[in-house]
Amino acid sequence: ESSNNLKENPHSRLNILTGEWVLVSPHRTKRPWQGKVEDLPQDNRPVYDEKCYLCPSNSRADGDTNPNYKESFVFKNDFSALLEDTSDGGYNENDLLVAKNQRGICKVISFSPKHNLTLPELSVPEITKVVDLWQAEFANLASNSWIKYIQIFENKGEIMGCSNPHPHGQIWAQSDLPVEIIKETERQRKYYAINKSSLLKDYLAVELEKQERIVFENDAFVVLVPFWAVWPYETMIVSKKHVQNINAFDAKEKELLAETIKIITSKYDNLFQTSFPYSAGMHQAPVNDGNHTEWHWHMHFYPPLLRSATVKKFMVGYEMLANPQRDITPEYAAIRLKELSTEHYKSKAQ
Amino acid sequence: ESSNNLKENPHSRLNILTGEWVLVSPHRTKRPWQGKVEDLPQDNRPVYDEKCYLCPSNSRADGDTNPNYKESFVFKNDFSALLEDTSDGGYNENDLLVAKNQRGICKVISFSPKHNLTLPELSVPEITKVVDLWQAEFANLASNSWIKYIQIFENKGEIMGCSNPHPHGQIWAQSDLPVEIIKETERQRKYYAINKSSLLKDYLAVELEKQERIVFENDAFVVLVPFWAVWPYETMIVSKKHVQNINAFDAKEKELLAETIKIITSKYDNLFQTSFPYSAGMHQAPVNDGNHTEWHWHMHFYPPLLRSATVKKFMVGYEMLANPQRDITPEYAAIRLKELSTEHYKSKAQ
Ligand SMILES: O=P(O)(O)O[C@H]1O[C@H](CO)[C@@H](O)[C@H](O)[C@H]1O
Ligand SMILES: O=P(O)(O)O[C@H]1O[C@H](CO)[C@@H](O)[C@H](O)[C@H]1O
Repeated sequence: ESSNNLKENPHSRLNILTGEWVLVSPHRTKRPWQGKVEDLPQDNRPVYDEKCYLCPSNSRADGDTNPNYKESFVFKNDFSALLEDTSDGGYNENDLLVAKNQRGICKVISFSPKHNLTLPELSVPEITKVVDLWQAEFANLASNSWIKYIQIFENKGEIMGCSNPHPHGQIWAQSDLPVEIIKETERQRKYYAINKSSLLKDYLAVELEKQERIVFENDAFVVLVPFWAVWPYETMIVSKKHVQNINAFDAKEKELLAETIKIITSKYDNLFQTSFPYSAGMHQAPVNDGNHTEWHWHMHFYPPLLRSATVKKFMVGYEMLANPQRDITPEYAAIRLKELSTEHYKSKAQ
Repeated sequence: ESSNNLKENPHSRLNILTGEWVLVSPHRTKRPWQGKVEDLPQDNRPVYDEKCYLCPSNSRADGDTNPNYKESFVFKNDFSALLEDTSDGGYNENDLLVAKNQRGICKVISFSPKHNLTLPELSVPEITKVVDLWQAEFANLASNSWIKYIQIFENKGEIMGCSNPHPHGQIWAQSDLPVEIIKETERQRKYYAINKSSLLKDYLAVELEKQERIVFENDAFVVLVPFWAVWPYETMIVSKKHVQNINAFDAKEKELLAETIKIITSKYDNLFQTSFPYSAGMHQAPVNDGNHTEWHWHMHFYPPLLRSATVKKFMVGYEMLANPQRDITPEYAAIRLKELSTEHYKSKAQ
């Protein structure tokens, strides 16, 4: 059957990174929406907010005072979900009740001293400074031999549970592999063992040839809507080079990563002329865990908005109990994102 | 290590039904909340709404007119995500782009002619009529030999993507097994092969002995907070008898199931004195798919509320990219739910 029928027929697509499926219902885009409409959060923040625990020179919950920082700034989360001093230990009752202690370190990274900006509104050199800090933190955390995985991510927008609009991300590092990393490791390892080549490198070659889901490309990175995308405008940044983690990128590549992040997040904001909410984060090889040549660095963007700035896609009943489901096709989303300007709508307004 | 340390240490727990883990951070409940606060949806609906497509005698999007029904009513979803007449077919490009057509039938069940009620506000005999309809629909859908799985569920509350407050649920039946059912089938089959006994029956025995996570029990069903619960007040109804699907329940058991549903949903409403949002649904054996003796019928409730009627738990960045995470422990949630009255707060007010 040709790929053409995927525009019309309800079908499932395989996520090659996890082995799981997504249900696509292209005909369903005609459904009228009578459900919940989101409030648009205020978008007129001051450059500095005296009540913000991320602004320079302000004090935080643990009593510390932030430095008067000029670029970006990192500190340990005052309400960490994981703690460094948790002892080893486990609990097992007939393999029916099974638990295991988890050690970890949770950090917060402020992307800018300016309270009123977001990633797409920073300059490429400013975002490059954030990439520098990600590299430094990755190296620093990985130097603890008990740390096995480092999750770098950002929740943007209050609809994504972000509790402070000051531009910031998080890093959670921990003593075991998280569920999603176990899945992606298994699939990539299996593919690498059979094909002696990176799963994402081969996937990227197919996508670059087809040009149906490519949103943006520079010398080092590609932004695309994965064939198996779950969220309406989900994208993925994939490095052209097959590398295991963020510390493999040199100065030029870091600048190109900063450019790539600026462009996809600007396109997102341009889509509905709003500060576009998402959760984004890098997936990379485990650390202190032997050889992981199979791993190919990439970064996922999971945005909830569906048709406008106030209508989101709900991953609820059927999706939670049975299978993720989407209406608009990944190909349609890619065309829309591709045609949008790479320049942020606010910068043009000036 | 004793189970006592699970009250304090950050740890992971194994979901024995899926093989996946949840991260529990008990110490983190002290975290103050500065994030998004939800609006409470209006709760003063009329008994009949002329614009509601579920109310008796009203017309629907496809032009049909609802009968003037007195109990419950079922019809094919006017915006079905799956269609009955989709042809077989697939698409495969080097095992990198993989898709498969999906056939299915999507139905909507109105639980009551009254627009202003919800499940906990119906009487046990009224809920028993809903169970009757679920049984009839299950048998009816399973009589199509191409249908392999039947997902019965409810999205309650606009925060759960429910687009119409009229009390109703859905049924999506389809030609392949959904992702979550594949996982639960695999785990139950493996356990059954080794132990010649149902995974959930043995799990239930441990829980009934410990009495730490039991919320309610009658002669045929148990409501408990699973040891591996992800959502703050997640619960599961498990049948005491090891049966494969809803059609194994006799008249007495149907009444006891209706009672169980009324009680857990009343407790939910009582928790924050609000119409408590959730997605709920049954998991049961595949149909037209050979022998599935390993399967044990159960029903999950996934509610998003965390600390009040307006503060929800966000499953975002870390959770989407890495691993589900929760703050309050399942044991704490069970104690709170257990101590709440089984009588709905509104019925007492009268
Ligand atoms: O069919 P409804 O109620 O309009 O839609 C709701 O339930 C569906 C099944 O869980 C979801 O796919 C939708 O995102 C949700 O809004
Ligand atoms: O740490 P924050 O930003 O307060 O919290 C946010 O991100 C965390 C990690 O994704 C989630 O566990 C929380 O539910 C969310 O509100």
